Amino acid sequence: MAEEKTKNADEIFKEFKEHSITEFFRKNSQMLGYAGKVRSLTTIAHEYITNSLDACEEAGILPDIEIRVKEISENRYGVYVRDNGPGIPSKHVGKALASVLTGTKFHRYMQQRGQQGIGAGGCTIFALITTGRGIRVKSSTGKEAYTCDLSIDIKGNKPLVNNLVQIKPDFRGLVVEGEFGDVKYEKSEHGVYEYVRRTALSNPHTSIKLVEPDGNEAVFPRSVNTMPRKPRQILPHPLGISASDLLDFAHISESRKVTSFLVDSFSRVTHDKVRELMDLAKDVDFDKAPRQLTWEDATRIVEAFKHVKWIGPELDAMSTIGEKQIEIAIGNILNPKFNSVVERKPQVFKGGVPFVVEVGIAYGGEAGRKNGAAVSGNILRFANKVPLLFDTGSCAITEAVQGIDWKRYSIAKFDEEPVSVLVNVSSVYIPYSGVGKQAIAQEDEIVEEIKLAVQDAGRKLQRFLSGERHKSIQQSGYKTIMRYVSQLSSDLEEITGRKKEETEKELKNLIDKRYKSLFKEEDGETEQEEAQSAS
Amino acid sequence: MAEEKTKNADEIFKEFKEHSITEFFRKNSQMLGYAGKVRSLTTIAHEYITNSLDACEEAGILPDIEIRVKEISENRYGVYVRDNGPGIPSKHVGKALASVLTGTKFHRYMQQRGQQGIGAGGCTIFALITTGRGIRVKSSTGKEAYTCDLSIDIKGNKPLVNNLVQIKPDFRGLVVEGEFGDVKYEKSEHGVYEYVRRTALSNPHTSIKLVEPDGNEAVFPRSVNTMPRKPRQILPHPLGISASDLLDFAHISESRKVTSFLVDSFSRVTHDKVRELMDLAKDVDFDKAPRQLTWEDATRIVEAFKHVKWIGPELDAMSTIGEKQIEIAIGNILNPKFNSVVERKPQVFKGGVPFVVEVGIAYGGEAGRKNGAAVSGNILRFANKVPLLFDTGSCAITEAVQGIDWKRYSIAKFDEEPVSVLVNVSSVYIPYSGVGKQAIAQEDEIVEEIKLAVQDAGRKLQRFLSGERHKSIQQSGYKTIMRYVSQLSSDLEEITGRKKEETEKELKNLIDKRYKSLFKEEDGETEQEEAQSAS
Repeated sequence: MAEEKTKNADEIFKEFKEHSITEFFRKNSQMLGYAGKVRSLTTIAHEYITNSLDACEEAGILPDIEIRVKEISENRYGVYVRDNGPGIPSKHVGKALASVLTGTKFHRYMQQRGQQGIGAGGCTIFALITTGRGIRVKSSTGKEAYTCDLSIDIKGNKPLVNNLVQIKPDFRGLVVEGEFGDVKYEKSEHGVYEYVRRTALSNPHTSIKLVEPDGNEAVFPRSVNTMPRKPRQILPHPLGISASDLLDFAHISESRKVTSFLVDSFSRVTHDKVRELMDLAKDVDFDKAPRQLTWEDATRIVEAFKHVKWIGPELDAMSTIGEKQIEIAIGNILNPKFNSVVERKPQVFKGGVPFVVEVGIAYGGEAGRKNGAAVSGNILRFANKVPLLFDTGSCAITEAVQGIDWKRYSIAKFDEEPVSVLVNVSSVYIPYSGVGKQAIAQEDEIVEEIKLAVQDAGRKLQRFLSGERHKSIQQSGYKTIMRYVSQLSSDLEEITGRKKEETEKELKNLIDKRYKSLFKEEDGETEQEEAQSAS
Repeated sequence: MAEEKTKNADEIFKEFKEHSITEFFRKNSQMLGYAGKVRSLTTIAHEYITNSLDACEEAGILPDIEIRVKEISENRYGVYVRDNGPGIPSKHVGKALASVLTGTKFHRYMQQRGQQGIGAGGCTIFALITTGRGIRVKSSTGKEAYTCDLSIDIKGNKPLVNNLVQIKPDFRGLVVEGEFGDVKYEKSEHGVYEYVRRTALSNPHTSIKLVEPDGNEAVFPRSVNTMPRKPRQILPHPLGISASDLLDFAHISESRKVTSFLVDSFSRVTHDKVRELMDLAKDVDFDKAPRQLTWEDATRIVEAFKHVKWIGPELDAMSTIGEKQIEIAIGNILNPKFNSVVERKPQVFKGGVPFVVEVGIAYGGEAGRKNGAAVSGNILRFANKVPLLFDTGSCAITEAVQGIDWKRYSIAKFDEEPVSVLVNVSSVYIPYSGVGKQAIAQEDEIVEEIKLAVQDAGRKLQRFLSGERHKSIQQSGYKTIMRYVSQLSSDLEEITGRKKEETEKELKNLIDKRYKSLFKEEDGETEQEEAQSAS
């Protein structure tokens, strides 16, 4: 210990360095979802597919996506993704696909699959660190078409566009092609196939074709020929923003005064409401330029927000999977005996961010954790219609579903019975717990709302199960009695001389009637119980 | 639908913007661990305490840390952290505490608690977004002492140092003080108190005092007066690096030729080994400057690495908690009836990154998930001696422990019996799954090694439990027989005339002897069984 050199502060800080965000993600690519060979390949498919779906949605195009995965050598695969979307203008393609923290989605309040501007750039980083080469792009916006190679200057987080060649714009869309090392194609519940299948189920307006490494073509045709409701970009609601947010918006605002800034930047703020705010926050000069607002001003305005009566946030800005489609999806995946789907009304979290929860519960068939089906988990998670296959344990959906007292819904042990739960959370801002966007942070309001949705669906399940149980008790009682009817009838013939067939027929009628009335009574009881447990 | 405006590519990309990493983390602060009020406060304590411990360790100082948490108003707290470390020179303080992705630890192969250069900057961002104010610092390196205010220019990720005042350097260390909103002090298993307590247990050379908001002083005195083995910075092992890593090191190398670059930059590479590499990678020019290496060169060299016989990575660069200290820690937290601790030999993952696993299993006392103790989880996770309190579900430790077939170790259901497992993983690079560093990514080699360690400790537990069970069976058998000895002896006296007392004494001796031999036999069987189950 004595000869161990210890350092003083100057020596320690001599090594002080700055790093770029691309360097950071190169070193910690597991944080982007590149952990494990199978998962890494799924992450690549996920990033490109969600980008395509978002672009098509924004351009109002029914998506047609093709993804080809080709094995090149051990742990090295080629990935090709083609869409029929709006394409990317060549002057933006570098930033869009070969840098991180750039994009169109960062400050938007709009339901989109991507929201960070990291995903596609992350793929290019991963291609670079595992093969030394970037990706190849072909795109047409209808006006301009080109091919090019994309790479990244890692130290500077700068895109490098090479070999840009203009071609004939006789198509529309984007083709991305790259080679990736340290990946593996596997047809497991965490693999590309399962990801594509679930994407198709939650996006019925999409046609997806997956060509697997063995040449097998899995085609998921579109089952709906209309675009889903287009998510609208909305303004943030006053109750959903903090002083820090307010200042942030103020600093990018083009309004001349605080008054017009508030009306222009936030939902539900009218000039009348601004007058109320001015009364409540007398120390703030509402005539100055927005960028001159101080933290104290912002705090006062946010405080005043809380004392004004607002119309709630706009809730129709989101697009859900839809009850019918969830039923079809569950039917396709699990082929259950019973299916209970609930779409709740939109809610808000953090005071003003709208979100909406949809839930489907499946019972029987291939539902349940212990079932031998391809899907071994019993919780199917989606966020903005994107399947979440990883980080199950730290997700708000998992927490909510596992926090349910399943016994109340006639499920003794959730993990051991043939029951599965599908949950989709849609929002203009999904609070993902990590950069890899595979789990929703456990915000109280979201967890609570998911629980309520599962309970709603659970009550229908409970009714079904108690019906099933009564039926089975009744059926076995009925059978037992019927077994004796014939014997009894012939005994009675001996004693009374009355014909066996007659007695038998009458007795059977009598029993059938009795059992029918039993059914009714018990159905009544069930509903009563259910009403109690709901309170 | 018809009137919905759809956008073409030019319109979509008109809104294209770049964002700074600080902007990103401000918007997604939950990714840094700021999700939920209690957790956010713990994250703040965690970042400052780990920084202090790392600094003291590097400077060879026994850490003396004081942390004060003061309630200012609802959901708003003051946090004060003081250490006796080396201090921070004023010219570095901005970068160190008020920016992200800057630091001394990024490219090091050395076991440290911090490794990303994000933590402390994240605290300053969180202070800014919840209170509009940065933090206040007082520091002395022994040569220079000062106070200052720190803030961040979020758009540019630039630190802002204000009100810097030189003071008398009559102390050494760092004091950080700030106010934080949207936080809450709670004495739960996720709170600051529990975090500090577990830190004290895994860092016995540290003295920590926590002053809680109610004024209560929790003092955790140091229990060991010597520094733990100092982690050494090591060079990466050739088998642990990829072509991408090799190029990265080549580009920052000051060596003149590839030959000397390889010897200087990697562990176990001698000039003899370089000659072997030159034979294996004939197409590479080993005389050129390292920064002229191409991807093809790097691929060839990495391929050649695989065909040379190497001495394994340096494994003595890491510092563990230690078996004895884990026993004390478990005793303190859980007061169990039985305690089985295992420290495994260091291993490597990804071919060349060394890590070491320590495990302790506690049985009885307050161990177990269903126990009413303060610690409700039954898996206590540590990484480089830092307690991990969040993201339990997505951690390699959780996966490994839950993947154990506990029945083999006489535990019917892991979650329902009074059993807890403590695991500490130490490494020169912990592959955290998220930026918030609360879970270890599920790398196969790490999960496997944790499993082996738990199984080692589990075998001791199994032996103890089967001993316990035999004892209890034997004890009840013994008692039953003894109950009859007296009756039998007096019956025999009637029949044979032999004195009851004599017969009773002899019978008792006989039974005692028989039971002693039984103990031995069954112990023998147990070990045999155990040897089988270990194979």
